[in-house]
This record gives sequence, C-alpha cells and structure tokens, in this order.
Amino acid sequence: MGSLALDTIETQSSRREEVLGGAACYASYAASFFAPVRLVGVVGQDFPAEHEQLLRRREIDLAGLERVPGRTFRWAGRYAADFNQRTTLDTQLNVFETFRPKIPQAYADSEMVFLANIDPVLQLEVLNQVRQPRFVACDTMNFWIGGKRPDLQRVLKRVNMVLLNDEEARQLSGRDNLPAAARIIHEMGPAVVVIKRGDAGALLFSQGEVFAAPAFPLEHVVDPTGAGDSFAGGCMGWLARTGDLSTDGIRNAMVFGTVLASFAVQDFSLDRFRTLDAEAIRSRCADFAKLVRYTPAAY
Amino acid sequence: MGSLALDTIETQSSRREEVLGGAACYASYAASFFAPVRLVGVVGQDFPAEHEQLLRRREIDLAGLERVPGRTFRWAGRYAADFNQRTTLDTQLNVFETFRPKIPQAYADSEMVFLANIDPVLQLEVLNQVRQPRFVACDTMNFWIGGKRPDLQRVLKRVNMVLLNDEEARQLSGRDNLPAAARIIHEMGPAVVVIKRGDAGALLFSQGEVFAAPAFPLEHVVDPTGAGDSFAGGCMGWLARTGDLSTDGIRNAMVFGTVLASFAVQDFSLDRFRTLDAEAIRSRCADFAKLVRYTPAAY
Repeated sequence: MGSLALDTIETQSSRREEVLGGAACYASYAASFFAPVRLVGVVGQDFPAEHEQLLRRREIDLAGLERVPGRTFRWAGRYAADFNQRTTLDTQLNVFETFRPKIPQAYADSEMVFLANIDPVLQLEVLNQVRQPRFVACDTMNFWIGGKRPDLQRVLKRVNMVLLNDEEARQLSGRDNLPAAARIIHEMGPAVVVIKRGDAGALLFSQGEVFAAPAFPLEHVVDPTGAGDSFAGGCMGWLARTGDLSTDGIRNAMVFGTVLASFAVQDFSLDRFRTLDAEAIRSRCADFAKLVRYTPAAY
Repeated sequence: MGSLALDTIETQSSRREEVLGGAACYASYAASFFAPVRLVGVVGQDFPAEHEQLLRRREIDLAGLERVPGRTFRWAGRYAADFNQRTTLDTQLNVFETFRPKIPQAYADSEMVFLANIDPVLQLEVLNQVRQPRFVACDTMNFWIGGKRPDLQRVLKRVNMVLLNDEEARQLSGRDNLPAAARIIHEMGPAVVVIKRGDAGALLFSQGEVFAAPAFPLEHVVDPTGAGDSFAGGCMGWLARTGDLSTDGIRNAMVFGTVLASFAVQDFSLDRFRTLDAEAIRSRCADFAKLVRYTPAAY
C-alpha cells in the first residue's frame, strides 16, 4: 500500500516529465520478481492506461487500485551531482490528498503487508482491515515523524519491521548514533529495524545482531528515485517467497532488496525493471557475494 | 612516516587538552599489533617523555624520530554530534613546518612503507631514501590535492596503494561517483585504491574487484580522531605480517584496519590501544565476520 505518482525528475545530465513513480509502484514491481503482489493505492482519471498495463503484466493484483475523479499525485524533484541530495521542486497531492485505503475482501488474508510511506493514520486503517498478517513492515518520512508522532507510534507498535533512512532514524529516536537510534526504535515496537543509507548501504538490527549490507557500487547511476522503495519491495518479496523470517532469512531478503534497488537506479522511472529478468538478478546477486566476500584469517 | 602531534579535542560531551595524536602515532601503534614498526617523524623538545615510552614499549623503532629545538606540532578540533563533521579550531605546525624526513640507514631496506598525510614533496623524499620497497601506500588531504597536485601525482605514480576519504577521492578525480573516481585514480598510478567513508566503512578497488568493508557499528563513540590512520596502520601491519598482497590478502588487511579503527574511536588519543590485546582484536574480528555474514540463497 502506498503512492502511485507521475514524477518529473531532473538530474545533472537529463530530465524526464511525468514518468511512472510512487512507492507502491517501485515496491510492487520489485517484489513481483519473487512473489505475487496485491497493490493498494489510488490514481486519478489521467493515469495513463499503459502504466496500469505495465503493472498488470507482472503478477500484480490491481483489485485494490482505485481510480477516482481528479488528477494523479505528482512529484517533481532535482538531484545534486552526487545523487545523495535532492530538492523537491513541486508536490501536488491531488487524488492522494483524500485517499482512504480500502482493502478488497480478496486481500484480507494477506500474510505479508508493506505499508509504504503515507500518513500513519492511513497505515493504521490498512492494518485494521487485514485479518491476521504474519509480518508487517512500514516506511515513513520526516513529515510524519515531526507532525504525527503519536499516530506513527501506534503504527510502530503493530509492525514487525520498520525501514527508514538514517536522517529519519535520527529524528524518530532523538539519537545521532545509528546503533543507539535502532535500539530506541526497537523499544517503540518493531523487532526488526532497517536503516537505509543511500549509496552507503543499509544496516539491519534484529535479535541483537547487526547486518551491514553495502549498496551495490555502480559507476553509472541515472536516477535514484524509488531506490528505497525498490529495496523494501525486493526485501518483502523475498520474505513472502520463502516465508523465512529468521535473521538469516531477513539478511538474504536485504540482499535481494539491495540488488533490486541497484537496478532501479540504472534508469529513470521503472524503466530498468521492464526488461529485468531472473538471470540478471541472479548475476548481480553473484556479484554482490563477491563484493562482500571475506574469509577470516587466523591471527 | 607522518606526524606526531599534541591534539586538543572537543566533542559534544567532553574535552581533552594536548593529548598524544598524529597520523604516525595512530598508524604505528595500530600496525604494531601485527608486525614490527619503524617510525619516521619529528617532535619538539616539549614532547612528553611518557609518549615516547608508550611507543617504545611496543615494537616501534624510534631511530627515525627526530627531536629538534622548538615546539611539537599541535592541532585542535571540535566534532559535531554525529562525529561525521569536524571543525579545525587551531593548527600550529611548529617543528613540523621545517621537517625534512631522514630515513635512518637501518630503515633503508624496509619492504612495506606507509606515507601518512604530509606534503607530497616530503613523501617523495622518503621514497628516494628507501632502497626497494615491495609495497608503498600513501594518504593525502584536500590541501595537497588542491595546492600541490603535480607533486602529489609524482607520488601516486610510485605507490601501490592510496588510501583517501570520499571527499578527497572526489576532489582528486573530479568525479562525484566513487567507482568512477577510483577508476580515474587507478590511472594516476596506484593499483589499489581504498576510499574511506567514516562510519559508512571503506571501499577497496583492486584488480577490477570491489570489496565493501562496513565500519564496525558502535553505540558509544568517544573520539574519531585517528580512525583513518589506525585503519591504514592496521591494514599495513597485517600486510607486513603476512606478505600476502593478493586481493584476498588486502581484503583481510582492510578488515584488520577496520577493527583497529573501531578500537581507536572508543577513547581519546591512543588510550584504547594502551590496554588492547590480541584476544580483544580476535573477538572483534569474529564480530565483524558476523556483521557481514551472508550465505547466498538460491533464486
């Protein structure tokens, strides 16, 4: 559950107007390489039919995609040369502003739930509509941490995993140190805390263990939009596929998340995903294993 | 070869005045856990005898430590709450200003040479005094990249490995993207390029391979001064101990560098090193192995 958007993206070398974006699109598409997906979101009447077809061609169930009168959510942003900073140029919530997620009857037995970044009040409404999920993960953002903390804390009490970036982790916990921040966030509810650090990778805190997953180094990054959502989608998709919620299972899920994120940034929008296949994913997983290969030496 | 300093350090919670510091101290002490060390540097007549004794108690040869009239190099700095930014409050080069490194006859056959951050002209003078080193590594800083690029490039042509932080790598290469920066720096000479990213770990680029070594996550960081030099020292010490200059050997060296850096930041100055023993290093290496443990799953 999350946003579907039409994004206008400016990088130092290029620009794309009103391309398919939104957390729910990136996460669903990434997850669809591993497991069937049920999407919940809203678009306006201007949402191009080709985008819907793109999602439908994967095993992405769109029964939960509402199409309502009005315009689709739009976001515009510009990236600095090193891609680690971005400026929001424009946000038009449009139909997203009055969105109240409705879980179709056929989705109510969903075992794995990912609540992408959205008003925590709506994240709670989704949780109230799913019967007995086995594993719930959520994302959030600075806006809700600052403006709707009590609601967000109600969400955190009910999720198994939270994924957030380093700045959000610091804001939420009031701690600068990331392991300390993770500990504070654990105490708010989630047994699994994943802190995303962009091109510095992600840290998993779970059952007293830490796992450091570096980002996959790429010489040519085209557009980092959706990297975090693709990471979350790849991660949740793998967990759904295997059902293995052990720490080692989640480590593997994070690596698949890392790999999907690395593909997402290699082109604008979901364009790299369109031609992505299992063979390319397998090959990059093998490269990831080389990236972290370490055989301890005796000392 | 590098600086010995008296550092005055301010963190958010504490302050230390004129404690032992300097790249040569951190690097030598870290390396001394793995191999005998020969130090080259300069101090003034005010350099406390206890500091010299501290180094002498390890297998650190001080034949190359000059003591000259005048005051020892002093540096003062303040760290921001997250330790990733620091402000230099004061720099007094003192005897370091007119330092011309002289390699004692007994050092001339040294096989492994680490040139810590210092004027590249002096790094070249050192290289001209060692007979046939097997492996030379150097560090540098923004000041020399900007102000003495031709000299620095002469150094780079003669070293096997360069260690520098991400901002320095960007400045030196003119590229924002780190894998691209590493490629450009390779072309300047060093077969091995190590880019240090503070608490985001380090990247090794060597023989077409990349190795990502995360920093060791610590909930309590006291003072990050010397982390990079301890990393370099641990790395070089391990290479000297094993003589294994293969990519896997360098991966292991980087992990020992990471481990030594993680100890360095747990107290001010070299204080954590004073009580450090092989058992604690072994134990943290085992924890590091857990931090990166990843058993690829079939997909």
